[in-house]
Amino acid sequence: MSTLKGSCIIGQSGGPTAVINASALGAIQTALADPRITHVYGAAHGIRGVLDDALYDMSLEDPAELARLKYTPSSALGSCRHKMKDPDIDDTEYRRVLEIFKKYDVRYFFYNGGNDSMDTCNKISKYMLKAGYECRVMGIPKTIDNDLFGTDHCPGYGSAAKYIATTCMEVYQDARVYDMPMVTVIEIMGRHAGWLTAAAALATAAGLGPDLIYLPETDFDQAAFLRDVKALYEKNGKVIAAVSEGIHDAEGRFISEASTSATDGFGHAQLGGLAARLADLVKTELGCKVRGIELSLLQRCATHCASATDIEEAYAAGAAAVRHAVEGLTDKMVGFRRVMENGHYRCEIQLLDLEGVANLEKKVPREWINAEGNGILPPFIDYATPLVRGETGLPFENGLPRFAKLKKIRAR
Amino acid sequence: MSTLKGSCIIGQSGGPTAVINASALGAIQTALADPRITHVYGAAHGIRGVLDDALYDMSLEDPAELARLKYTPSSALGSCRHKMKDPDIDDTEYRRVLEIFKKYDVRYFFYNGGNDSMDTCNKISKYMLKAGYECRVMGIPKTIDNDLFGTDHCPGYGSAAKYIATTCMEVYQDARVYDMPMVTVIEIMGRHAGWLTAAAALATAAGLGPDLIYLPETDFDQAAFLRDVKALYEKNGKVIAAVSEGIHDAEGRFISEASTSATDGFGHAQLGGLAARLADLVKTELGCKVRGIELSLLQRCATHCASATDIEEAYAAGAAAVRHAVEGLTDKMVGFRRVMENGHYRCEIQLLDLEGVANLEKKVPREWINAEGNGILPPFIDYATPLVRGETGLPFENGLPRFAKLKKIRAR
Repeated sequence: MSTLKGSCIIGQSGGPTAVINASALGAIQTALADPRITHVYGAAHGIRGVLDDALYDMSLEDPAELARLKYTPSSALGSCRHKMKDPDIDDTEYRRVLEIFKKYDVRYFFYNGGNDSMDTCNKISKYMLKAGYECRVMGIPKTIDNDLFGTDHCPGYGSAAKYIATTCMEVYQDARVYDMPMVTVIEIMGRHAGWLTAAAALATAAGLGPDLIYLPETDFDQAAFLRDVKALYEKNGKVIAAVSEGIHDAEGRFISEASTSATDGFGHAQLGGLAARLADLVKTELGCKVRGIELSLLQRCATHCASATDIEEAYAAGAAAVRHAVEGLTDKMVGFRRVMENGHYRCEIQLLDLEGVANLEKKVPREWINAEGNGILPPFIDYATPLVRGETGLPFENGLPRFAKLKKIRAR
Repeated sequence: MSTLKGSCIIGQSGGPTAVINASALGAIQTALADPRITHVYGAAHGIRGVLDDALYDMSLEDPAELARLKYTPSSALGSCRHKMKDPDIDDTEYRRVLEIFKKYDVRYFFYNGGNDSMDTCNKISKYMLKAGYECRVMGIPKTIDNDLFGTDHCPGYGSAAKYIATTCMEVYQDARVYDMPMVTVIEIMGRHAGWLTAAAALATAAGLGPDLIYLPETDFDQAAFLRDVKALYEKNGKVIAAVSEGIHDAEGRFISEASTSATDGFGHAQLGGLAARLADLVKTELGCKVRGIELSLLQRCATHCASATDIEEAYAAGAAAVRHAVEGLTDKMVGFRRVMENGHYRCEIQLLDLEGVANLEKKVPREWINAEGNGILPPFIDYATPLVRGETGLPFENGLPRFAKLKKIRAR
């Protein structure tokens, strides 16, 4: 394979996770150490930073501070939800990207994100090829949603799953404390895929979790939900139900849709308020004490409860992207293959064609959900357990987390 | 002082905390080890367990499992929100308590709770004295609200404060990630006292916290709130406001009151939904992206983010209650005195008269809040910082918390 010398850009895109900075760190440290990479730039707010000529010179950061990125939540370089147009219809932005790439002699582009970001990677790579500009493009996966195609799981998921399961266990303890009946509804993120909500089943498998779990992989029938809750309520007095924000009726309408009409930058409906709504519904039907809890942003930024397995894998994904690119590969997304040896989990890096992963969504297999669509089966527990193992190494100072403080010095 | 031999009952009451079980453990282990205490009983659901003759024999628990109570959230024995009547009006329940005390030869009663529970302690103690039944009664404080009178702080507060500050720091990282303006409203518990909401200022002092903080100690002026948010929004693009669930207007009406009409067992209004409501208001006024986050139950049960200082102090409070009772004291609540030596914090046990603490509420001093009523001043930071220091020793198994599993064998 040919040696390609030049600068690299690392960008972060889409919703943040607890470990996206661990991936950035893996890429940045590997790139800084590689003689074939002349400059390491961080894009301010993903592809927007490229378009705006807003790049940070990562070599000017204090290495010790940079190393703290491993335990710093959210996207330290800034993220965006910018969807690039089809270049065949409007190539304005692509021409601008090429201009910036030429200005900084960028020969490596590493983009860390979810489905939409892999699509951005793919489009940029194709445009550069067409323009005859040699640039290697690698996608680094991240998404708490765990819905990227072709990879066993995604960096970010294990930590969110660990936080969700831990929180469900703590809420379980709390919700059972009084000698009076109560129904608790916990709303968990996940628009189209139920991976996050299914993580609540880890708490149930540990004996301290929701009684009922509803994913968007099945249609949500409000009458059946009320029947489920009522039956358990009459039997046990206490009921905890976990619901995905993306649960929908048989016609595909989000149950939470009435709550809001906002959309995000990609045109997706912004969901929320579902827990309160279902809790109210239960209260009206059963006349009992209810509580609705929305885990909200906390599930994607809780580095204090991140999974060590997830952190290390996220770092490895970032490092692998750089290593494989300098060795000659391009148009790939770093993926994970699960290897089980004598019952022990191991995660291997595998490279997937960007073309094959962009814009595809991986859902929880229907056979991992019970027939009634209100519970999760053992194969999911076997799948998710290795991903939440190990505790974070987040350092505390004076009782509070100590996150990375970057200087973010603009490149010229 | 006279030696009094007999059984003891330990009960837990009111809303759970991350460390109320640490106090129970301190009391139980100390009582089990003391030859003057013949039997150690745990009351199922606080005073209700006494009334219902539902006591657990704590000597039958596996000591190793019992020891896990130090890191198990919520009230392991069960809690209640039962308010006892004035015995001069109706002494039915007091006669029943005396009957149970006689049945089990109970000479020590330890009750772990907040304001209302200290009132219960006080009433029971007075009744036993009047009835000529010798029984020593000690209150062990707990409340995330930190509103108990006479003590520097309350077990449970430090852990809740640590969780709130940590979560605010993580949300801060997350909320600033996009290159578009956004206003985030975080709703924090605390009906009448703003201690919990003030803890968000620890995050601000660390450079990663809310811009605006509103406590129930001052009147909430919606117009001023919108002006505050708008000014910061126009200057910085990003705004985070932390509000207490108990903020109220100048007439004392809760801002969240329209959201719900439910009340709890003590007749207090059940609040909630405030974050969403204020976020909607900001959206209507400023037309910007908003997010409302309610920390909900998580702030009182997040043992995974508990303060080691709080855990150890909670344990010490439970142990001290038993130690002082067997030494002859009664009608006291264990309190904390803060000792600062060369800038180092130390916490000393002090005993307060139950009479002097029951039903009184301690609020955040007005002079610790800025003149505008939208921010917290340095004296609070100095006060709260030592309380959140140190991390939990919660053990994890297979990536998830491992809480105590008690057998709860009923005494006969």
